[in-house]
Amino acid sequence: MLNIDDVVGADATKLEEMARQIRRRIIEVVSKNGGHLASNLGVVDLTLALYSVFDPRENVIIWDTSHQCYTHKLLLDRWESFSSLRQLGGISGYTTLKESIFDRFGAGHAGTSIAAALGIERALRLKKEMKNVLVVIGDGALTNGEALESLNQIKGQNSRLKIILNDNGMSIAQNVGALSETFAKIRTNPAYVKFKGLVKKMLEGTEVGKNLEDELRRLREGVKLFISGFDFFESLGIKHIGPIDGHDIELMKKLFERIKNYDYPVVVHLITQKGRGYEPAENNCIVFHSAPKFNLNTGEPLAKKNHMSYSEVFGETLVRISQKNDKIFAITAAMPDGTGLRKFSQIFPERFADLGITEQSCVTFAAGLATMGYRPFVAIYSSFLQRAYDQIFHDVALQNLNVVFAVDRSGLVGEDGPTHHGLNDICLFRTIPGSKIFTPSNLVELISILRSIVEKDVSGVVSVRYPRDSREANFEKLWDESTVLDIFNWETVRTGNGKIAVLAAGTLLENTRKLASLDPTIVYVRCVKPLDEKSLMKIADAHDAIVTLEEGYINGGFGESVISFLIKHGYKRSVLTMGVAEKFVSHGSREELLKLCKLDSEGIFESVISFLKKEVYAW
Amino acid sequence: MLNIDDVVGADATKLEEMARQIRRRIIEVVSKNGGHLASNLGVVDLTLALYSVFDPRENVIIWDTSHQCYTHKLLLDRWESFSSLRQLGGISGYTTLKESIFDRFGAGHAGTSIAAALGIERALRLKKEMKNVLVVIGDGALTNGEALESLNQIKGQNSRLKIILNDNGMSIAQNVGALSETFAKIRTNPAYVKFKGLVKKMLEGTEVGKNLEDELRRLREGVKLFISGFDFFESLGIKHIGPIDGHDIELMKKLFERIKNYDYPVVVHLITQKGRGYEPAENNCIVFHSAPKFNLNTGEPLAKKNHMSYSEVFGETLVRISQKNDKIFAITAAMPDGTGLRKFSQIFPERFADLGITEQSCVTFAAGLATMGYRPFVAIYSSFLQRAYDQIFHDVALQNLNVVFAVDRSGLVGEDGPTHHGLNDICLFRTIPGSKIFTPSNLVELISILRSIVEKDVSGVVSVRYPRDSREANFEKLWDESTVLDIFNWETVRTGNGKIAVLAAGTLLENTRKLASLDPTIVYVRCVKPLDEKSLMKIADAHDAIVTLEEGYINGGFGESVISFLIKHGYKRSVLTMGVAEKFVSHGSREELLKLCKLDSEGIFESVISFLKKEVYAW
Repeated sequence: MLNIDDVVGADATKLEEMARQIRRRIIEVVSKNGGHLASNLGVVDLTLALYSVFDPRENVIIWDTSHQCYTHKLLLDRWESFSSLRQLGGISGYTTLKESIFDRFGAGHAGTSIAAALGIERALRLKKEMKNVLVVIGDGALTNGEALESLNQIKGQNSRLKIILNDNGMSIAQNVGALSETFAKIRTNPAYVKFKGLVKKMLEGTEVGKNLEDELRRLREGVKLFISGFDFFESLGIKHIGPIDGHDIELMKKLFERIKNYDYPVVVHLITQKGRGYEPAENNCIVFHSAPKFNLNTGEPLAKKNHMSYSEVFGETLVRISQKNDKIFAITAAMPDGTGLRKFSQIFPERFADLGITEQSCVTFAAGLATMGYRPFVAIYSSFLQRAYDQIFHDVALQNLNVVFAVDRSGLVGEDGPTHHGLNDICLFRTIPGSKIFTPSNLVELISILRSIVEKDVSGVVSVRYPRDSREANFEKLWDESTVLDIFNWETVRTGNGKIAVLAAGTLLENTRKLASLDPTIVYVRCVKPLDEKSLMKIADAHDAIVTLEEGYINGGFGESVISFLIKHGYKRSVLTMGVAEKFVSHGSREELLKLCKLDSEGIFESVISFLKKEVYAW
Repeated sequence: MLNIDDVVGADATKLEEMARQIRRRIIEVVSKNGGHLASNLGVVDLTLALYSVFDPRENVIIWDTSHQCYTHKLLLDRWESFSSLRQLGGISGYTTLKESIFDRFGAGHAGTSIAAALGIERALRLKKEMKNVLVVIGDGALTNGEALESLNQIKGQNSRLKIILNDNGMSIAQNVGALSETFAKIRTNPAYVKFKGLVKKMLEGTEVGKNLEDELRRLREGVKLFISGFDFFESLGIKHIGPIDGHDIELMKKLFERIKNYDYPVVVHLITQKGRGYEPAENNCIVFHSAPKFNLNTGEPLAKKNHMSYSEVFGETLVRISQKNDKIFAITAAMPDGTGLRKFSQIFPERFADLGITEQSCVTFAAGLATMGYRPFVAIYSSFLQRAYDQIFHDVALQNLNVVFAVDRSGLVGEDGPTHHGLNDICLFRTIPGSKIFTPSNLVELISILRSIVEKDVSGVVSVRYPRDSREANFEKLWDESTVLDIFNWETVRTGNGKIAVLAAGTLLENTRKLASLDPTIVYVRCVKPLDEKSLMKIADAHDAIVTLEEGYINGGFGESVISFLIKHGYKRSVLTMGVAEKFVSHGSREELLKLCKLDSEGIFESVISFLKKEVYAW
């Protein structure tokens, strides 16, 4: 068991031993619980070197996206509790304000760290507290617009921010963009090896000029490591130190000591390796970015056999459709694997774009394509798509363009927790005039809906939402079962005794089975918006009460749209809207969280029973 | 009357004459209709030079934010109709796809042009059409995150985009950020004058090497115009040409000719003057950025005498409150004047930040301040705040931080039209767990609500929304009338005969006066969220029917939250939700648009009458 007191002021040899201990602990726990293995192994050395010089209790250190905060957590009072990582009631996989006062800012979305740090620094200046403020940010997060706009603000804010650039050449997949390209050129430049040696010598020498950056720049020039793009940071008025080996603890310590009292902003550029110290992760850092549970000895993931995720089925379907339709274009924001688009990107490279962690640009890029008659599919996780709400509204909807949003990871995502749940995409899309929202109930339905959208040329802003989930499946069989549908129509799955009708959106349809004992009518809501008004009127006429069911926030969601419609038409009976109440939902397994939100079979059954029993307030 | 045919291929002398004609037309119309005068006068020469070389019918030219598109519109079939600029049924102040096929992409929010252009370019490549794609973007829009992330994508997309950087040193107010600072240094550098002369000579010479950029770079180096930051673009793999005088038509023509066949991306850096050619606008380009109607001869705005806008009252109030509370901090995204914060910025510079057109960073910056116990007020127009939805959710709400959002220009904004209406902020804030939404009904109420939020320490995500409107007022009097309130309580303004109760959110309360003949109960809804449930229950009990009224989209809005609550409590009577139906609303005066949406006194009266008369469908 290690603690921050062991680290602060420790020498490199001791820190290297600690690094081994920490790696063992991380691998052990993540193999059992799943988690962001590769990125965390990549920053063990960096964190130790940094914390040995900048005590995180005395300074403010912010982790961008914060999926790489495991070493930080282990050192700051969570060595033991780390075994509960990402489990219900256990510690979060991200920094969170409420978990520790040394988690200075919570995150789960990329690119927020610099803006937060500038705010914190401003506050410290007002309070006349002269703590150092540091940010650790990856080269992936740096492609994000918020990070870039904040970078441009540093100079004007008279900041003395210290930015540790953790350059591992990856977002989640291979990184994209001009900056990444330049960084990659540096890493693979033979001169870099010579440069590394010289830097080491320089930092070890007792006599180094005051101006470290100038010396480093001279050195870079001397070894011809001056590549266009290298001085991106300098062009924004930020001193750029490095690149330095992010696994050489001794070297990093020396460097951090030097910058301690700088009163101007610097970027310390560290080159790290994702998965460092665990061979399977070094060899496949994409899989081990956000890893499922795995066999510690072999590195083999303990995935369910023969299962296909919704993402995979989406990807396969898009490939299939695109073979006959040359207007389809697929766009991802740094998630070619997570969204299931890897295969598409290989078969149709000319109709594919991975634009990095830039949800905003992805959507406007799609709008641009749409003005030229293309049919873009933008596949982004529900929670991250929030970043592009304005672009969906302003660039796509307002211009009446046709873009399909494949809203992956909608609903309760599980272990990644509150920053990653996709609970409000229904509400958000509802506020967009003319939008259409589809909620497939299973894998076959996902295929049918996608096929129908394309074949029937469903226009405008189209959202297709599906959960982070998988089922035993074979794609050919699924495809054969799928069909082109009247996708605006709801489907009565079961006709009951006329007492209640349950309108179930999406995959929650599965969880209505226990209701059978109540003999309800069960309706599969394939299309949340527009409402199938004809069906709804009939259903309302034929039943004493209506229950709506959705995996998302009730406020502004599907249920409210049903109520709103019914009231408008003079409906005078009872309605129960089921979904997620107005609160943030913790992390835990998807099953546990569905239970917690009373959206599992049992919870739904209980809620309906108590709704039926309820004394209705007498008006 | 001019047309694009006059321009294409015309020589500089003819273009200069046309520039005079165009300026006269713009000044004449804007003095009558209001509009973006300064920025449009600044780009007359640029547009003519550009269009004389790149025929906008043959090439794709996209205007970022597009408020500076007047010359474009005049030349592309809208010389006559330009007199209807920004008027109901007239032409839009922005490019819009439906107005002309040569308006290649619509905009009203900043920073979208490059992403759209990359999408369009990609489509053209797939279609094997080799049109040039160009973007005209201001140095202000370039501070925006979406623009920056797209800039980083250009190289990876193998783009040959031509970016015309319209560098006038302003966003709307003085520009901020490291890039702007560098640009400013160039403009004011004595060497720039020498450089300009040399460039002219070079471009006029018959013998210029193939590589124009290299020659220009040598020239810049020669005259020591090499300032850190100048090569920001080069660091992203984009050739940077300039800076060049953006009013020298002959010079620009020559430059544009040279870059015509470049097969790699370039930035052509033009230095322009906002307001060029109209002295009052040259002298005060902030006022004339988005100018009200004005006296053409004197430049005096035809503003209503003794009126104060909601923005001004907000600004004055914040100054007043902050004199006694040193935790208040004010943040704006490039709108110190528009949001009424200019005075605050002068009195409390250390507690003020203008971060440029960076709504995302503004919100996260505020969250950073809030972690340190400060009480940030983020003043952003409703429509632009959409850009920061994710940050409000992820950085503020999820972390349980206290930030007040001064949601200016909410509701129907008038002449700026659909890109600028603030119709969905109620819906958006409703989807954020724990948020609070206040809707002052008048200027005094705005003050009272702001005072109460601070004095009663109202926590979490707090939205205060108010319209783009003004009333005859004197601040001291308003302040004296204001008071610290129980702001979560609704207020019964009028008690009626028990037939209907009207729940009016915000300033629409004014428009309920005509209803008096129906003897309704009128309730002023000061707080849209949380609902004043106690009052609502009483009201529901005591009336046959309820009418809700809000200046925003009905989908997901206040009315739905009322219905949702009532249904949950077994309500069985009628409700009418009034607001804006699911569609985009055109431009026109605020009064005209309220009428169009049936939210003026007459419209509200008629809707209520027809609701009361309606045969309610018999269940």
